[in-house]
Amino acid sequence: MAKEKRVGVVLSGCGFLDGAEIQEAACTLLSLDRRGAKVLAFAPDAAQMHVVDHRKGAPAAGAERNVLAESARIVRGEIADVAGARAGDLDALVFPGGYGAAKNLSSYAVEGAKLRVHPEVERLVREVHAAHKPIGFICIAPVIGAKVLGGEGVKLTIGNDAATAKDLEALGARHVACKVEEICVDERLKVVSTPAYMLGPTISPVSQGIDRLVAAVLEMA
Amino acid sequence: MAKEKRVGVVLSGCGFLDGAEIQEAACTLLSLDRRGAKVLAFAPDAAQMHVVDHRKGAPAAGAERNVLAESARIVRGEIADVAGARAGDLDALVFPGGYGAAKNLSSYAVEGAKLRVHPEVERLVREVHAAHKPIGFICIAPVIGAKVLGGEGVKLTIGNDAATAKDLEALGARHVACKVEEICVDERLKVVSTPAYMLGPTISPVSQGIDRLVAAVLEMA
Repeated sequence: MAKEKRVGVVLSGCGFLDGAEIQEAACTLLSLDRRGAKVLAFAPDAAQMHVVDHRKGAPAAGAERNVLAESARIVRGEIADVAGARAGDLDALVFPGGYGAAKNLSSYAVEGAKLRVHPEVERLVREVHAAHKPIGFICIAPVIGAKVLGGEGVKLTIGNDAATAKDLEALGARHVACKVEEICVDERLKVVSTPAYMLGPTISPVSQGIDRLVAAVLEMA
Repeated sequence: MAKEKRVGVVLSGCGFLDGAEIQEAACTLLSLDRRGAKVLAFAPDAAQMHVVDHRKGAPAAGAERNVLAESARIVRGEIADVAGARAGDLDALVFPGGYGAAKNLSSYAVEGAKLRVHPEVERLVREVHAAHKPIGFICIAPVIGAKVLGGEGVKLTIGNDAATAKDLEALGARHVACKVEEICVDERLKVVSTPAYMLGPTISPVSQGIDRLVAAVLEMA
């Protein structure tokens, strides 16, 4: 019997406007569990960029939340600080999307193609990649892949949004347009991506794309 | 072609220790969307009983959150106050679990078998039931079904927890032990239940039970 594969899932909060996209994160966990992988969840122990009232769609003035504590809601408390994550303990890494990937894991929402990536997130991506282990980027999370691996000409998709695709290419990545149920696979660099809620519009096609991404990542792990 | 069925999903916050169980809620949405149903999400516009730090597993002193605003995170903002929900606009109703069902939708976590149910939630359950439309209760949410429909001897499962099963029976319900992948169907009263994270232990078997519950609810709708 094949050894259980250990997959790091990096979360960015809890709720698509200021954290991880909850449905994408849950679909990722479901697909990994169904396929017999062991999930190791991580998030930065840091303040969120801000807190958004998801009913109103507007920032809540004065509110503060911690990315790790909020991410813990999705995985029922089974989560650790990403600063302690080591490539040697993982067979693969997956990033669900949501604005949290662009607000808490990186500064893409504010700085666009001039983004910075959270230092411990960048370190982990570099370590996992250097160990020739696969990485999956969902929804808007490919901006992190473009920033860290753009120098190698990584192939990525964020669906078909022209402005975001242009930013990826400015970072050295090659953007490939993709439907929501589909994945973009860079076999050379072992990087897989899928548009998810960059396209939507509902959880069922999003889950199909994520399931294919998880299958491809596990295949390469 | 069959008309699209409209299913009310009543949420209780966002995170299993003080709100809706996120994975159960996402699996419910996924199953409904895959099966072509239209989701109408609702939650009470009220303060949560408390806020729990899901990393530490302990209440966060002084923190306050609104059940409707937090529930909105799970459904990407598409949600309304349960006070406005009408049985005539729905073909069925489903309650995901999480402590929120026992803390925000009812007082079960504090008062046990003496629980009160949020008045608008109780009204909606009574209206939907009076219209002979099916209702699904997931995880700990069957305590709400037992309180509102116990007088009719409703058949329910919460898995196999003896103390909770005893409380259900004290309310007039009949408890049926059930595995996580299975459902309990009361065909007479059109009530379906599944243990989900009352048993767990992981999202894959939980999703199987929820998918069966959704299929049974839609079949009766």
